[in-house]
Amino acid sequence: VAEKGRGRVDIQNDLASLLGAAGWLTAPRDTAPYTRDWLDRYGVPPIGVARPTDTQQVAEVVRLCRQAGVAVVPQGGGTGLVGASVATSPNTVIVSLARMNKIEMIDEQEHTAVVEAGVILENLHTALDAQDLSFPMHLGSEGTAQIGGLIATNAGGSHAFRFGMMSELVLGMEVVLLNGDVWTGMRRLIKDNSGLQLRKLFCGSEGRLGIVTRAALRLYPAQRERATAMIACPSLNAMLKTGQALRRSCGELLVAMEFFDTEILDLALHHIPDLTNPMDTATPFYILLELATSIDTLDLHPLLESAMEPVFEAGWAIDAVVAQSQAQRAALWRIREDLPEGTLREGRQLKHDIAVPVSAFPAFLEDSAARIAKILPGTRIWTFGHLADGNIHYNLSPPSGQVDFSNADMELSSAIYENAERHGGTFAAEHGVGHSKHAVADQLRSTTERDLMSKILMAADPEQIMNPEVP
Amino acid sequence: VAEKGRGRVDIQNDLASLLGAAGWLTAPRDTAPYTRDWLDRYGVPPIGVARPTDTQQVAEVVRLCRQAGVAVVPQGGGTGLVGASVATSPNTVIVSLARMNKIEMIDEQEHTAVVEAGVILENLHTALDAQDLSFPMHLGSEGTAQIGGLIATNAGGSHAFRFGMMSELVLGMEVVLLNGDVWTGMRRLIKDNSGLQLRKLFCGSEGRLGIVTRAALRLYPAQRERATAMIACPSLNAMLKTGQALRRSCGELLVAMEFFDTEILDLALHHIPDLTNPMDTATPFYILLELATSIDTLDLHPLLESAMEPVFEAGWAIDAVVAQSQAQRAALWRIREDLPEGTLREGRQLKHDIAVPVSAFPAFLEDSAARIAKILPGTRIWTFGHLADGNIHYNLSPPSGQVDFSNADMELSSAIYENAERHGGTFAAEHGVGHSKHAVADQLRSTTERDLMSKILMAADPEQIMNPEVP
Repeated sequence: VAEKGRGRVDIQNDLASLLGAAGWLTAPRDTAPYTRDWLDRYGVPPIGVARPTDTQQVAEVVRLCRQAGVAVVPQGGGTGLVGASVATSPNTVIVSLARMNKIEMIDEQEHTAVVEAGVILENLHTALDAQDLSFPMHLGSEGTAQIGGLIATNAGGSHAFRFGMMSELVLGMEVVLLNGDVWTGMRRLIKDNSGLQLRKLFCGSEGRLGIVTRAALRLYPAQRERATAMIACPSLNAMLKTGQALRRSCGELLVAMEFFDTEILDLALHHIPDLTNPMDTATPFYILLELATSIDTLDLHPLLESAMEPVFEAGWAIDAVVAQSQAQRAALWRIREDLPEGTLREGRQLKHDIAVPVSAFPAFLEDSAARIAKILPGTRIWTFGHLADGNIHYNLSPPSGQVDFSNADMELSSAIYENAERHGGTFAAEHGVGHSKHAVADQLRSTTERDLMSKILMAADPEQIMNPEVP
Repeated sequence: VAEKGRGRVDIQNDLASLLGAAGWLTAPRDTAPYTRDWLDRYGVPPIGVARPTDTQQVAEVVRLCRQAGVAVVPQGGGTGLVGASVATSPNTVIVSLARMNKIEMIDEQEHTAVVEAGVILENLHTALDAQDLSFPMHLGSEGTAQIGGLIATNAGGSHAFRFGMMSELVLGMEVVLLNGDVWTGMRRLIKDNSGLQLRKLFCGSEGRLGIVTRAALRLYPAQRERATAMIACPSLNAMLKTGQALRRSCGELLVAMEFFDTEILDLALHHIPDLTNPMDTATPFYILLELATSIDTLDLHPLLESAMEPVFEAGWAIDAVVAQSQAQRAALWRIREDLPEGTLREGRQLKHDIAVPVSAFPAFLEDSAARIAKILPGTRIWTFGHLADGNIHYNLSPPSGQVDFSNADMELSSAIYENAERHGGTFAAEHGVGHSKHAVADQLRSTTERDLMSKILMAADPEQIMNPEVP
């Protein structure tokens, strides 16, 4: 690390004079909102929080930090669930992109937008609505999450199955590298094979390869018609059969297919008083399905009904509620989106964002339950997620009457991650690795993979100052 | 380079004993089919051609070549257009994946396939047809191109706008690295954020980072209904307006939107006697459009007709032919696919695979024509490509009566590439960089980009033996 002799005082003075009072925060009451992660598990007070207003300022901050041997951690909306946007060492400057929040361009003909990294996803949605366009990234935190953070974590969400993760939706980007150089890869093109796919590599790099400052995004025509349904399935197998049948019969009109078990639905209904259950029938599993189209002459409801017919006939579904209005649609989606809040209000929990191939669902769920029962009998399991892409949010609460996991936390989580891997799955589906999966990543990656990733990271950041403790 | 002392004889003996007679070719008549690239512009005779039958053999070949200081160039179907799959130095072993051609698995429930790298794209299409599934990668060379080569070049094709390039369609892969280690990244998952997106980085790496040996591919339900039309547009602007309108009104059902100018259509009709023109009206530009759906209850023809109505009313299209049968559909697609053959039969040509944002089409085409007229007056310009993603195949023939470009080849190509860049585009859209764009890539990349790519390449292959002269 270069110039270790330069201390906190020097870098503070340098950054204060570069960024001004609104751009450089050091008082604890000012830096507090940036210090801890969303789940309040990680984060020590940093030297300060830099709030640059343009790319050149970001570059200068990185340059100064590098000179001073200070770590740099970029921060977007701070809604990440693996703790990758906070400091784990006090010798850190957090770079918040919040003030770089301009939507620079929306082009109807190209179906592209150019935005600064700090634009909040919901604000982009709103701006696009007015032009009958859409950016099809949807997740619970969209009112807070920023484009730069969504890129750095390669966000997925409920529509990824249909429209892709961020790596599919980002056409180009501008990135400040370790040495303060700015990589301008801002072409607004689907097809660009002019070299290594750097634009893809930066997606999901969690601040290790640089700081994303601007992005060119791919847009779609706005969705004009929707059909949304909640479907009651009498067994896991029935849910999988329903999913497979609807995936085929609804084809390209299927934009989301979420699932959850009856236990987590009951928990959310219990803890969130104004949440209501639209279903008359209680079944072990439910699907929340949405069809959508940008073609205003297509009527989706008859199509959904005829797609559902064989599913009911086969007994794979025994009840369904179809939203008849925008309010009913919102109510159905609210059930899905409030599920995490339900588990949160239950107290201590262990969250696991894993994915397995859909065909491995039964074996994964059975094996995981068996392992958990051995480690800590009575542990309660909540299962929900994205059926079409195999992404399961597999969360645990302590046995009834217990406030914690009797120090079995690590053992429980390891068992689940290993089990996902064993069934051809991943220990990190859409939330990333961050601090929370540092150890498990190190353990589950092959030597070859660990070596290859580490070579690339070292090539981009030999001094290891860019978000250095995120693997 | 290690052990330069070991010569051709040693590596020949080693590879012969590893691979056997069918797996190690050295006689000129045997290696000839592997020696030159598709356009017959690059390729010197290599030491020999290795034809391994499994991943372990590939790994052993790489290990032996590395020990001997011999370059390794992987080769798929050999249909690439930038010369990246042949030797430019005689001290090279070509590794053909042709014998690794097993389709290992097709999973209906997951919508995934697992294949070896040497599977020919058309063979995969045929196998999937039988199961009512599809792999939506379509390009002229699909009867020869192999999955591994499609990955290494990050192929695009006519459906990329709707379903993505290879980087969107490949879920996982197995890769033999420089040191003979095998990276197994074969998860069959859309969402996998378990570290750097290596699976994306290998797409388009042109054999520089390793040799792809197997892949997990994303499948879609088979398309059951199609509507295909050729549309006559009275001007460039009218074509762009038609494209924009249809993109909105046909929404998610639009799977391909190709375009070509009247000059290249006439040329193909002239040179290919059994090619017929279905249009009564000659206009400067044509669109070939296809809607498709996997939903068998959707009737696409009325939808296409109602989408076309406002386009005709506005005068953006003045004629259209809609295919009424599978044979008519094939005839329309044949026109599009025979366009390159038409220019080839005209004699010497300069091909340019570029892309610009659709909104920059008019300025790009105007500026390019003006520059060309200055450099070599009378040069004939053929324009065709993929309207929805801005990918233009911008090809030149010498002025009438001339057999070559009067030594202005380089100047003409440079002008076109620079002009694409100037209008926010790329000098390499879907064909890659390879040998043919080595120099232009070096010239047009920023210092920052060149440096970043080179650091990653050096990290993966410090000895520079993996397809070393491809940038």
